Amino acid sequence: MEKNFILKGNVCYSKDKENVITKENAYIICVNGISKGVFEVIPEEYADLALIDYGDCLIVPGLIDLHIHAPQFAYRGLGMDMELLDWLNEHAFPEEAKYADEDYAKKAYGMFVEDMKKGATTRACIFASRHVGGTGILMELLDQAGLAAYVGKVNMDRNAPDYLREKDAQESLSDTREWIEDTQNRYVKVKPMLTPRFIPSCTDDLMKGLGELQKEYQLPVQSHLSENPSEIKWVQELCPWSDNYGDAYEHFGLFGGDTCPTIMAHCVYSDEAEIRRMKEQGVFIAHCPQSNENIASGIAPVRTYLDLDMNIGLGSDIAGGSSSSIFRAMVDAIQVSKLRWRLQDSDLKGLNMEEAFYMATKGGGAFFGNVGSFEEGYELDAVILDDKTLPHPQELILRDRLERMIYLSDDRHIVGKYVAGEDILS
Amino acid sequence: MEKNFILKGNVCYSKDKENVITKENAYIICVNGISKGVFEVIPEEYADLALIDYGDCLIVPGLIDLHIHAPQFAYRGLGMDMELLDWLNEHAFPEEAKYADEDYAKKAYGMFVEDMKKGATTRACIFASRHVGGTGILMELLDQAGLAAYVGKVNMDRNAPDYLREKDAQESLSDTREWIEDTQNRYVKVKPMLTPRFIPSCTDDLMKGLGELQKEYQLPVQSHLSENPSEIKWVQELCPWSDNYGDAYEHFGLFGGDTCPTIMAHCVYSDEAEIRRMKEQGVFIAHCPQSNENIASGIAPVRTYLDLDMNIGLGSDIAGGSSSSIFRAMVDAIQVSKLRWRLQDSDLKGLNMEEAFYMATKGGGAFFGNVGSFEEGYELDAVILDDKTLPHPQELILRDRLERMIYLSDDRHIVGKYVAGEDILS
Repeated sequence: MEKNFILKGNVCYSKDKENVITKENAYIICVNGISKGVFEVIPEEYADLALIDYGDCLIVPGLIDLHIHAPQFAYRGLGMDMELLDWLNEHAFPEEAKYADEDYAKKAYGMFVEDMKKGATTRACIFASRHVGGTGILMELLDQAGLAAYVGKVNMDRNAPDYLREKDAQESLSDTREWIEDTQNRYVKVKPMLTPRFIPSCTDDLMKGLGELQKEYQLPVQSHLSENPSEIKWVQELCPWSDNYGDAYEHFGLFGGDTCPTIMAHCVYSDEAEIRRMKEQGVFIAHCPQSNENIASGIAPVRTYLDLDMNIGLGSDIAGGSSSSIFRAMVDAIQVSKLRWRLQDSDLKGLNMEEAFYMATKGGGAFFGNVGSFEEGYELDAVILDDKTLPHPQELILRDRLERMIYLSDDRHIVGKYVAGEDILS
Repeated sequence: MEKNFILKGNVCYSKDKENVITKENAYIICVNGISKGVFEVIPEEYADLALIDYGDCLIVPGLIDLHIHAPQFAYRGLGMDMELLDWLNEHAFPEEAKYADEDYAKKAYGMFVEDMKKGATTRACIFASRHVGGTGILMELLDQAGLAAYVGKVNMDRNAPDYLREKDAQESLSDTREWIEDTQNRYVKVKPMLTPRFIPSCTDDLMKGLGELQKEYQLPVQSHLSENPSEIKWVQELCPWSDNYGDAYEHFGLFGGDTCPTIMAHCVYSDEAEIRRMKEQGVFIAHCPQSNENIASGIAPVRTYLDLDMNIGLGSDIAGGSSSSIFRAMVDAIQVSKLRWRLQDSDLKGLNMEEAFYMATKGGGAFFGNVGSFEEGYELDAVILDDKTLPHPQELILRDRLERMIYLSDDRHIVGKYVAGEDILS
């Protein structure tokens, strides 16, 4: 497939967490799927590349969803009246059990992937279910759609209903090994990721085995951390030897560091020691504001994480979050940060548009390498937005058009989408 | 226009604030624009009415927006990084000043009305600007679109920039009288409503005159109340004689009671005395959760208001709120109520879907009379929702399909819309 071309349009991307660069009628040069940078005039050496002119459209980096549960997509926006642990038992677990049936998995994951394809997300870190077969189907569908993703077969051998729980650590680990062997080299942009559901779902034996698998296969890791006060208390009871919830992962070598890239979703209630350790280990925080509202978890101290220059991106957390849009997650992140400032800690000022856009692109993208920007050397993930169906009587500068898209756009506004230089909508 | 017909579909409406009635394949009988009730079989006396069969679609009451600023629609989703009073000066006031130009008003209000027409809102209480001409244009456009509304020419003779402020109380009052005389009998479903912007914008002389106009013309009233701590403090400084912010309205006869139906937007920080007086006077609360997030105001104690059986509905508060969707306002109301429970007061449990749906329909609708339900005697406002473009692998009961529409729908799902028995989309 041809991955050498020039995109023309109104280009917006984050320079850093405080600054969004906006360039009208600019050119993004793509060679072998990698950006050569953004230019006001096409450099002579690229004059022969095909030009794709998006006219007055906006061009932004593809959005990154650092935390989403594919089998929960089927019941997004349903049953939103309970707290985390009840909600898992009454809603999440019964639905996930259905993915033992590969026909059901094909049908339901097909809907999930179709939704992601037509939205603004180009890359995601995805929880599947515990089922090897279903997880493989999901990876296949993502690859066919041209999306980039890390996907996790979920590990869970305790504290879940018998109909869903894995029999024991041994079964869980052998399933996981089989799945890794089967998928690790099968696709270019879709890769396996170790996914212990969360500490309460995994025995120490299972966690120990996963730590060994991590070393053996050098896979990245994703899980949940400090989402809810009752959950944290429970982890302390289950792992009395741990200093904190994060330590319960680190004890088994599953908490960041150079050879174990790790995403932890939520981090609403991380204490000072846990935060310090996340920072030291380069753990990525997947901030999932809408989920934290829907399940009444609280509001994560994102200002603190940004001030500490920690790794942080956004997650939709379907179906704790109801919307799969990372534009919506940006707005939610801004909105809840303002409530946190007002209600909880007036020293931590709310987030602004630039910071939310950064987290959704370059911040989360860093987990995938050079992803989430149009600067030279970045993989070319781009979303083309046509905002002319949102009329306005006044003149708007490009920065304002971007803010409007963040607050008001939906998939109707997306007229083009590139992942690592591949046009996946045409 | 023919207002006698039968709608067939999957009907959902609030019985009361705790209960949503859901009836599959049911018939709503409409005679002269008024519902005769919902039936499983068409009663014989109505057998000759035209049947409009919406197949597997949902039919819900038209949504009610109790608080929205039409001239702010142009910059919804823009400039969301400041608190109320700064935001007014930097964003709201400069834009509103443009509505002195009737060509601009026609263009901009045209966009506003088009958006409301294609959304799920059938009735709204709307702030225009201070300008008589522009306000008349807005009312004309709403009437042409078939929407029902109370519209307010805004009064503001202090604490606003010279370019927007009315010269003095006398000018404001004579403009208001001229506008009332011109519009009070001009339309069937669009009516004038007295609209002092808020206490800080109106001198005592102006408020006194508005109280007299209210008695003379028997118009309803809308304004803002207890949105933000700094604002409340300012009102106390401006009206040292008042017991509280609400009392500063009541002093001039503009705070509810049998002959002065009143809507107060926000009520985030109303104290016990103010709440008691609102309850006694039957004041309607327009709860605007998204605006309260965007402008960092806080979270209103809606659980308290519901427990006290107060009059309450939802408002989009464009452009404090970015979205004009009252479905979105329902979700926002539920979400922030959960954060309030978690962060502020664990005695006040979060809202559920049924309560949010009630506020958006029957709760807010009560301001317009028998509006917001399909029970016998209610004006027939209905929105037809086709949810088949949101696929799902599992079976869903009607109640769940309604919850999904609340969380996930947008104007693409609206395939029909009736206001007081008039089909406004065909």
